[in-house]
Amino acid sequence: MPKITTLEEAFVHELSDIYSAEKQMTKSLPKLAKASSNPDLAAGFTMHLEETQGQIERIDQIVEMLGIKLKRIKCLAMEGLVAEGEETIDEIEKGPVRDVMLIAGGQKVEHYEIASYGGLIAIAKALGYKDAAKLLADTLAEEKATDVKLNGIAMSSVNKDALKQAADLTPAQ
Amino acid sequence: MPKITTLEEAFVHELSDIYSAEKQMTKSLPKLAKASSNPDLAAGFTMHLEETQGQIERIDQIVEMLGIKLKRIKCLAMEGLVAEGEETIDEIEKGPVRDVMLIAGGQKVEHYEIASYGGLIAIAKALGYKDAAKLLADTLAEEKATDVKLNGIAMSSVNKDALKQAADLTPAQ
Repeated sequence: MPKITTLEEAFVHELSDIYSAEKQMTKSLPKLAKASSNPDLAAGFTMHLEETQGQIERIDQIVEMLGIKLKRIKCLAMEGLVAEGEETIDEIEKGPVRDVMLIAGGQKVEHYEIASYGGLIAIAKALGYKDAAKLLADTLAEEKATDVKLNGIAMSSVNKDALKQAADLTPAQ
Repeated sequence: MPKITTLEEAFVHELSDIYSAEKQMTKSLPKLAKASSNPDLAAGFTMHLEETQGQIERIDQIVEMLGIKLKRIKCLAMEGLVAEGEETIDEIEKGPVRDVMLIAGGQKVEHYEIASYGGLIAIAKALGYKDAAKLLADTLAEEKATDVKLNGIAMSSVNKDALKQAADLTPAQ
């Protein structure tokens, strides 16, 4: 028996999936902030935690506005992304190389969310959910800005610091 | 004992991760093509399978060029993304609503890869791996083009077809 037969149900499924993803991020982001050695990176993760809480509130608003009920599902992709972040913390000592990997992981999370919200906006528009599409677009803009910000931190200092650490630790070739 | 201490090792780790992700996609893409009802979507997944094989070859070239050895790791995030694709196929009958969800899933995969290759290029450039960065940039361009293509298929027909199906199946509100 198929569980999803309409575009409305597909929308609810996708919204439930990203809701689970954002909830998982609220638990992960404080750990990522604590694990960062670069202060801009730590501050970036902390700021994004606040944003994430606002993004969850937007989803709550959409649920109320449309009178829908989210499904209790766990976003498996975000579960994998969070597990990879924990692996990074386990496998790399605090410092610039770990920061590089935390940024790489953070950008994967942001892109997962960018794709999710992009898809949700397209479905919302097709269904005529204009107000929902607007709220989702606000979140999408924040996710894109976070990705750009992580990129900036990587380029401005972290990659260079990691390279310096690498040069200090590895024999000259 | 930390397993990654240098930027070179971080590069090898990230390259091993995306190698695993691409290998997983070569198994998933034929299933996605078969599960699609829209012929453009099915053709898109099939074409991307060929591209993916070329992308794996580029990674092999980089490995040879740099004389590095990839780690045998499984990309957990892609494992989650593939599991979500299989869930879509299990939970939704073949037709336009399933196509919407296959596109949504496909765009999440593309964005995961866009973030991965973007990070790898930044690390490669920091390490002075110019030829590797160029090969990775070729792949990144393909992933971005696939994302745009999926978007176009969604906008041009699939979302409208799904809406039509939804209208046929659900009572008027």
